[in-house]
Amino acid sequence: MKKEDCIFCRIAAGDIPSETVYEDDDYRAILDLGPASRGHTLILPKEHFRDVTELSAHYAAGILPVAAKIGEAMKKALSCDGFNLVQNNGEAAGQTVMHFHMHVIPRYNSETAPIAAWEPHKADPEELKQIREQLAAAIE
Amino acid sequence: MKKEDCIFCRIAAGDIPSETVYEDDDYRAILDLGPASRGHTLILPKEHFRDVTELSAHYAAGILPVAAKIGEAMKKALSCDGFNLVQNNGEAAGQTVMHFHMHVIPRYNSETAPIAAWEPHKADPEELKQIREQLAAAIE
Repeated sequence: MKKEDCIFCRIAAGDIPSETVYEDDDYRAILDLGPASRGHTLILPKEHFRDVTELSAHYAAGILPVAAKIGEAMKKALSCDGFNLVQNNGEAAGQTVMHFHMHVIPRYNSETAPIAAWEPHKADPEELKQIREQLAAAIE
Repeated sequence: MKKEDCIFCRIAAGDIPSETVYEDDDYRAILDLGPASRGHTLILPKEHFRDVTELSAHYAAGILPVAAKIGEAMKKALSCDGFNLVQNNGEAAGQTVMHFHMHVIPRYNSETAPIAAWEPHKADPEELKQIREQLAAAIE
């Protein structure tokens, strides 16, 4: 299923050129044009899914093995010291293209915080208990 | 395989109490004690793997389906507007516990940037081409 009006569908299909670092039957991985760090890569499924909740079982199972392969290659080829996987669901989470994509972001000891971490809050144990009850009850 | 000196192995096994929102044969999902936002959850495999490159094929395939289930429940139970998946590999990437874990972070329109986004750099097309060549050649 390919959506003509989806830029990531068109890139994944090869209709729009990209710097492709990896491709198989299901995924294309490309360099991000606005990288957080040197080698920042996006994994795109070739089928259209809006976000992780829409992914088919087949595609959901395949993403992390591809991400691991790319992360390993980043360490070898780019000498990065670590890497982040980041995947945003919904505008509120910073998703800008509504086609599932996973960021693989190389991290270098020489660069401080190319992607900033969150500020952890002090959690209230009673509140945690209440959230846990709500959340656990909603999981199907 | 359980490591006695790994805190996430002990939490995943139920030896250390936690606010568990989901559990199956392979994974335990718990509330983060230093949450980025209300409902911040960690998915822990019950086997010990340091990071995504170490995950067995079985565990790698199972993570995103669990994350999707939890994200869906967050929208329903916590009325969040979106959620991030974040998974850090190596100290350089902000990994603090050396047992694979995936963050599921609910995002609320009412809160600005509980997890900060990166500053995109302007990419030089020639540099991208060169990085692509290096990276593609290193992927096995």
